[in-house]
Amino acid sequence: MTNPLLSDRDVDFLLYEVLDAEGLCALPDFEGYNRETFDLVLGNARRLAREVLFPAFQPMDAEPPSLVEGRVRVHPRMRELYPAMVAQGYIAATRPAAVGGAQLPHLVSGMATAYLMAANAAAYAYLGLTTGAAHLIEAFGSDWLRETFMRPMYEGRYTGTMALTEPHAGSSLGDITTRATPQADGAFRVQGSKVFISGGDHDLTENIVHLVLGRVDGAPPGVRGVSLFAVPRLRPEGGGLVPNDAHATGVFHKMGWKGLPSIALNLGEEGDCLGWLVGPEGRGLACMFQMMNEARIMVGINATATASAAYQESLAYAQSRPQGRALSSRGDGPMVPIIEHADVRRMLLRQKAIVEGSLALLATASRYSDLSGHLADDDAKREAQRMLDLLTPLAKSFPAERGFESNTLAVQIHGGYGYTSEYLPEAWLRDQKLNTIHEGTTGIQAMDLLGRKVMAEGGAALMAFGATVGAAIAEAREAGVEARWCDELGAAVESVGGLTMELGEKGMAGDREGMLRHATDYLDLMGTVVVAWQWLAMATAATRGLGRGVEGEGADFYRGKLAAARYWYANELPRAALLVARIREADGSYAEAKAEWF
Amino acid sequence: MTNPLLSDRDVDFLLYEVLDAEGLCALPDFEGYNRETFDLVLGNARRLAREVLFPAFQPMDAEPPSLVEGRVRVHPRMRELYPAMVAQGYIAATRPAAVGGAQLPHLVSGMATAYLMAANAAAYAYLGLTTGAAHLIEAFGSDWLRETFMRPMYEGRYTGTMALTEPHAGSSLGDITTRATPQADGAFRVQGSKVFISGGDHDLTENIVHLVLGRVDGAPPGVRGVSLFAVPRLRPEGGGLVPNDAHATGVFHKMGWKGLPSIALNLGEEGDCLGWLVGPEGRGLACMFQMMNEARIMVGINATATASAAYQESLAYAQSRPQGRALSSRGDGPMVPIIEHADVRRMLLRQKAIVEGSLALLATASRYSDLSGHLADDDAKREAQRMLDLLTPLAKSFPAERGFESNTLAVQIHGGYGYTSEYLPEAWLRDQKLNTIHEGTTGIQAMDLLGRKVMAEGGAALMAFGATVGAAIAEAREAGVEARWCDELGAAVESVGGLTMELGEKGMAGDREGMLRHATDYLDLMGTVVVAWQWLAMATAATRGLGRGVEGEGADFYRGKLAAARYWYANELPRAALLVARIREADGSYAEAKAEWF
Repeated sequence: MTNPLLSDRDVDFLLYEVLDAEGLCALPDFEGYNRETFDLVLGNARRLAREVLFPAFQPMDAEPPSLVEGRVRVHPRMRELYPAMVAQGYIAATRPAAVGGAQLPHLVSGMATAYLMAANAAAYAYLGLTTGAAHLIEAFGSDWLRETFMRPMYEGRYTGTMALTEPHAGSSLGDITTRATPQADGAFRVQGSKVFISGGDHDLTENIVHLVLGRVDGAPPGVRGVSLFAVPRLRPEGGGLVPNDAHATGVFHKMGWKGLPSIALNLGEEGDCLGWLVGPEGRGLACMFQMMNEARIMVGINATATASAAYQESLAYAQSRPQGRALSSRGDGPMVPIIEHADVRRMLLRQKAIVEGSLALLATASRYSDLSGHLADDDAKREAQRMLDLLTPLAKSFPAERGFESNTLAVQIHGGYGYTSEYLPEAWLRDQKLNTIHEGTTGIQAMDLLGRKVMAEGGAALMAFGATVGAAIAEAREAGVEARWCDELGAAVESVGGLTMELGEKGMAGDREGMLRHATDYLDLMGTVVVAWQWLAMATAATRGLGRGVEGEGADFYRGKLAAARYWYANELPRAALLVARIREADGSYAEAKAEWF
Repeated sequence: MTNPLLSDRDVDFLLYEVLDAEGLCALPDFEGYNRETFDLVLGNARRLAREVLFPAFQPMDAEPPSLVEGRVRVHPRMRELYPAMVAQGYIAATRPAAVGGAQLPHLVSGMATAYLMAANAAAYAYLGLTTGAAHLIEAFGSDWLRETFMRPMYEGRYTGTMALTEPHAGSSLGDITTRATPQADGAFRVQGSKVFISGGDHDLTENIVHLVLGRVDGAPPGVRGVSLFAVPRLRPEGGGLVPNDAHATGVFHKMGWKGLPSIALNLGEEGDCLGWLVGPEGRGLACMFQMMNEARIMVGINATATASAAYQESLAYAQSRPQGRALSSRGDGPMVPIIEHADVRRMLLRQKAIVEGSLALLATASRYSDLSGHLADDDAKREAQRMLDLLTPLAKSFPAERGFESNTLAVQIHGGYGYTSEYLPEAWLRDQKLNTIHEGTTGIQAMDLLGRKVMAEGGAALMAFGATVGAAIAEAREAGVEARWCDELGAAVESVGGLTMELGEKGMAGDREGMLRHATDYLDLMGTVVVAWQWLAMATAATRGLGRGVEGEGADFYRGKLAAARYWYANELPRAALLVARIREADGSYAEAKAEWF
């Protein structure tokens, strides 16, 4: 059997037994949908992922695109993959009908694209990047920009990129130096060098639109001087498209994501590169940040998908690979499939707990995105937005960090074969590593969570979180879920609340360094707790499922859910108390270490 | 400045301030040595590693060897590297003078080869494998075998391999099927297929000798029927060397170690492959196991070296890469090198704690290897052997598992650049992954530690360990090391002792599954504690060093040691109590999960 990439049963479980996807159809913006149409979307994605995208994954990994005479030639398989994805309408799936979108809830769209990313993340990225870039123009661009660039991007005729990073400015975006000089007609002459531009050049579509951060001449230093521009590879002129002096000067050789070129991009080398302002001057970073949630959620889905594909692969391997004997047989019995060895089952259950816990977290975040965007009631909308804001750094970093560990276990289960590229797990491990780095490193997510998200509005997001988890615990108790888990999760959330208050006081007393010193531990703590919440919610649905008296495979699925929940509560949640203590004690070993001591 | 690969100061500290390398010279077998000659050995290794091996690392990673007309062609740089290493006598460095060796203590030889492995693990592996294979013949082979194969191997004219794994038998060596049919002249006709044979073919030396596990016709099934054979690529015949029907049939494409071919090896495809028995018939695995300690220690050194090179690289990067501003400057100050950011310093100190803790562990294990091999007193010898036995699975798996994490942090510190192969950390990350797999996976090490090592002789090894750590704690207290660390380590060792006794009782009551269920957690627990012991010993030496009133760089070095010790005691040792509780509670989530629940 071929790799299913994600478990269909698990996705359906999340949508229809845990998160009430159908309930979203009661919102006016989603009234055209129902379970049937959701299933149609998912069915198409599953087929496309398994039959078209996945078979091209290894060939694309083996032959990265290169620069030939100044242009990037994509892998030939992309010419078949790209139109197939575009035809399904993925680029504008969640966008409103007014701009040509299908107005699909993020909850459903996210699960559908998870299949595509699990199958071939690099191939899907051409579309995902285009969605993000076009959405920026949709939100902040002029009518002309929307007509000229956004529309062909949503239609898949142009692709888009995010051109933020410069050789000397990665995490520190306030230091970018790309310059933009105003022209008489309202356009800007752009000059600068960008690096790590994914999909920054290719020969797949007629045009590419770069969303570029730069500074208008005379702008103040730092983040307040940064503006956002649309800079196409070919610009509209005289009724056609002419070259716009935006050139690929090199392709980076990367550890993974080999199907997607990451390039160094030179703008205005010959002084002939035009760009158009997107959003108000000096508000470039603010505009970007408004989209950042979306991009980070997408990274989280990608990380989950990459870990899921590897989990499924190692599960199938463990079920079919005979090796060694049962401990009880004292060496004389028949060989058994390696899933029979406790340590292999440990590695599988750990992967399952990470992968399915991550998927539940991403689905939950996506649902809050739908609610925050489409609820009628302003208070409820705001509350959903707070939850989304709080969950975003976790939904990005947890699957990236723990997913990497999960991918490592998939390699390990394959033994020596896992180290060879005849098997796929090593490729997914290489792909996964990017997710802790791009769209804000894990360290940046930690600062965002502790320095911004939990402290905003006097801790309103954390209060919303406490209430939400409290409700989930009450539901779990009512359904008859293991009482100990309910108690332990309640205690963990409470101690996180107390700790956060102490940290907030530190910050307000002016000790911002002390507040943020253990930000990464805090991120780890919150990730562990948030995923424990997800496992409790899944345990509730599974317990209810078993209560309906299902048997056979149906019951096995629910028992697997309960086993993974048990694993998380016995092996991971206990770390929370340790982390709380460490953060509270404010160990100063690294903060106080001097650079010259290393 | 070029990457130093390992810190010379740290290696000297371990040898001369922590582990009393000069004290070994009091043993008759090492009487020819003194600090001066040790330093000469180290100096040569440092130069060779930095000036010759390291510059070839990236080119060799970029161009793996391939099979051309049935033979593997090595990377051209190897023709310069191999003779340079052979000339320094590394192959037989620790072997006795009687077989052409230099009789160097493992403690010093291990540190010297750590530099070579940090510089270019694949290049050094041709020698390391040869040492292991030749040592098997030295220990168990006939005079004829020693003259015919061992001697040219120790001289570097032939290389050696370990040919254990078969396509269907990796960890489960009792299931190998390679056949050996006795011939009239005492040789055997060998037939079988082996996979993952590192250095299994190349055009670097005139001959290659494979140490092959196989079964003599009619041998009993399982491990008792396995014998060891020397099977050369070319066999001696009529005063010369003739082809021996041992062919490379394929080269594996691997995630890392790209400079070293790993091949599929067919023996006796045309019925004309001869081999010679090494050691008694049916004792093949026992012979192999006698060498296993050595091979596992070498993997541990390799893992440490690979993590060290990456740590040094990320340290230099963090010291020189400006990005962002100090938290205190509120965004207006000058850019600072990223080492000034607390989270980057956390990642550096964590790497330092793992890398230097691992190196101390490996040096300690190597010293026990010297003592167990060369002490005069039988009791003391046995005691040293027990310590070596106990430490071996830890010295293999801790650097492999935690080193991989450390390598990940080195990538992370490099940000987007870390994901590209223009920088080295991603290559070291790929290399490191092998170390949790080969020479016994981490799961196998865990079973070895808990199922064998700590239970042997009624727990004698753990008692020796308790006494040794107790002495280290007493020394630390006397030197004035932080009393809390001494207390915490003492408590951890005590609780490990109690836990182990409980597990032993479980095993004796017949519940072997229950005893071994959390073997991997036990390995993690012991690794954490053993490295805490190493950090206490280093803190003792550092405290003494500071007590001598050194200043400047000298004092900075000791303060760095104390900072890393503090890090380990604040952030890692507290996990011990958690692990003890988890193992004691015997969480059954994965042990009781059924295969069909996944």
